Amino acid sequence: MRVGVLGAGQLARMLALAGHPLGMRFAFLDPASESCAAALGEHYCGDYGDTALLDRFAAAVDVVTYEFENVPVACVEYLARRRPVWPPAGALHTAQDRLHEKTLFRELGIATPPFQAVNSLEELKQAVAGIGLPAVLKTRRLGYDGKGQAVLRQPEDIDAAWHRIGGVPLILEGFVAFQREVSIIAVRGRDGEIRCYPLAENIHRNGILHLSRSCVGDSMQEQAESYIKLLLEQLDYVGVLALELFQDGARLIANEIAPRVHNSGHWTIEGAETSQFENHLRAVCGLPLGSTAALGHAAMLNFIGTLPPREAVLAMDDVHLHYYDKEERPGRKVGHATVRATAADALETRLQRLLDVTGLR
Amino acid sequence: MRVGVLGAGQLARMLALAGHPLGMRFAFLDPASESCAAALGEHYCGDYGDTALLDRFAAAVDVVTYEFENVPVACVEYLARRRPVWPPAGALHTAQDRLHEKTLFRELGIATPPFQAVNSLEELKQAVAGIGLPAVLKTRRLGYDGKGQAVLRQPEDIDAAWHRIGGVPLILEGFVAFQREVSIIAVRGRDGEIRCYPLAENIHRNGILHLSRSCVGDSMQEQAESYIKLLLEQLDYVGVLALELFQDGARLIANEIAPRVHNSGHWTIEGAETSQFENHLRAVCGLPLGSTAALGHAAMLNFIGTLPPREAVLAMDDVHLHYYDKEERPGRKVGHATVRATAADALETRLQRLLDVTGLR
Repeated sequence: MRVGVLGAGQLARMLALAGHPLGMRFAFLDPASESCAAALGEHYCGDYGDTALLDRFAAAVDVVTYEFENVPVACVEYLARRRPVWPPAGALHTAQDRLHEKTLFRELGIATPPFQAVNSLEELKQAVAGIGLPAVLKTRRLGYDGKGQAVLRQPEDIDAAWHRIGGVPLILEGFVAFQREVSIIAVRGRDGEIRCYPLAENIHRNGILHLSRSCVGDSMQEQAESYIKLLLEQLDYVGVLALELFQDGARLIANEIAPRVHNSGHWTIEGAETSQFENHLRAVCGLPLGSTAALGHAAMLNFIGTLPPREAVLAMDDVHLHYYDKEERPGRKVGHATVRATAADALETRLQRLLDVTGLR
Repeated sequence: MRVGVLGAGQLARMLALAGHPLGMRFAFLDPASESCAAALGEHYCGDYGDTALLDRFAAAVDVVTYEFENVPVACVEYLARRRPVWPPAGALHTAQDRLHEKTLFRELGIATPPFQAVNSLEELKQAVAGIGLPAVLKTRRLGYDGKGQAVLRQPEDIDAAWHRIGGVPLILEGFVAFQREVSIIAVRGRDGEIRCYPLAENIHRNGILHLSRSCVGDSMQEQAESYIKLLLEQLDYVGVLALELFQDGARLIANEIAPRVHNSGHWTIEGAETSQFENHLRAVCGLPLGSTAALGHAAMLNFIGTLPPREAVLAMDDVHLHYYDKEERPGRKVGHATVRATAADALETRLQRLLDVTGLR
């Protein structure tokens, strides 16, 4: 089975590491000349709109998937006329636009913050009047890792936020004073079977994921599963889907979906029976899904911008290091480490030591 | 860190899969034009005696290791003048000759069957007179998977055995009526630190490993560890070493060593905190060793000659599939699967189901 992946970053890389043992071979399409997945497959270097390249790429693979949600829908639709592409283009279309995404949540009865489309300063003022403050103004498209967002706390912030990110389609969302951020990752096979991983609790820093802890037996698991199952069915989804949620009291409020393997699921490589990467590949290749059961407790720490000293991290027992073979650069995800333990308190001790060793407390 | 591996078979492939997450890159030197590790690094295709190729290979890597013990010692010595090579050439020299190997066991006080070098039919007859029957006649060099061996049960077998494998240096060994075959795998770092994995119990079929079970808390663990530590120290070893043993009553009798990662340690990928592949790389690259603790109980089943139906195996929970991307051919190791469970009896149930599903009972 030859798998084509749009994008050749660390997610594509971890997909390939999971897929080779299953007998898969990989091709990556990515405009970047240096791609960290390229060591694990063939790299088709060029633009997502280059149809001659897309033809060659399609001819070289049996199935196509993608590692990021901002791949042009036109590219996916072009490829889908030549090879099966999973997740489906409709999921991509929804995930690429916060308005579509939030509208889908609302249609399915999934709790979401109040929201309103904003295309002018006038509309922004009207939206603030309706939703109230604080609120968050976001670009509808191409936002990630906190980019393209502005928090409005008082009426004076409106003009500044408009001038900072206005001029493109926006969405204003009510601010959720959440107790914690969680995400659920689930996988749906071609035959419709769904399996959900335990929730992860996520801590962000400067808008970028810093730390995820697996939450085995969490009281919110059932609610999160009911949400993501609605989404998977509605989108006729195949592959791994991530849903980010805010917890407010006993209620989960949907923030966004990612139609792909997700950073908050990296702990599943060591912390679950079958990793999100392997299960995504099993799904898109039409193979039976693997168990999503947790192996003890796990936590994942992201390395942003710089890598910690390898020796010091490897000297700790039960720490699993993942370098992405990317150049260090501020704000860039260059690696992660996962700690695992049988008991939750032992995990916490290990995690605190890892935070000390890496200087990331 | 760029790691050069002599050989590009499944062991090299699994080394690369373990090493990429640690930020390593791989180059493989192998005369075979189709090599199953080549998808995971650069393939230097050519003879082990081609010094121009060896020069280019050495220039492309920071450290060299090997995946099989029959790599020519001259090649390793040539490379060792250019780059660090681990395990050391002395270990290779010992492991390539059963007489050297058994002599080392004897020198270190490690129990081994009675043995004697045999270079003629006359010497064979003398050796049989001294050692008694049954006995096993083996070529001293280049034997693997039961090849180059003849069992002598009665005096009439002597001539036939001599005619079948004679003409090269041989060794006659006393036959061990063992209760079981076990192996111990250990790793030694550049700083001399040693870590041992739990014993594996091995079942062979037609001279080829069929099944390995991890034996956590085995009563023979201490004896096996004492043997392998003597060997690691004596050889000033760096990397993973495997020692195959026969158990006769409460005594372990050394059969042979393999100066490399070993088939009976494949269960460590999912069944131990750090796999034998990662620990071998950590050792040869001078990094701290990882924990060799077991994660529950594990068993590994080899696929020889043909692969089982992928869907049926993947449909079982807690089965981990490893295809080597090799063409199916009689007697060839083309893949394996590992089952894991928290409790020993649950493991046995899963293993029996795997044997049924694969038709390998």
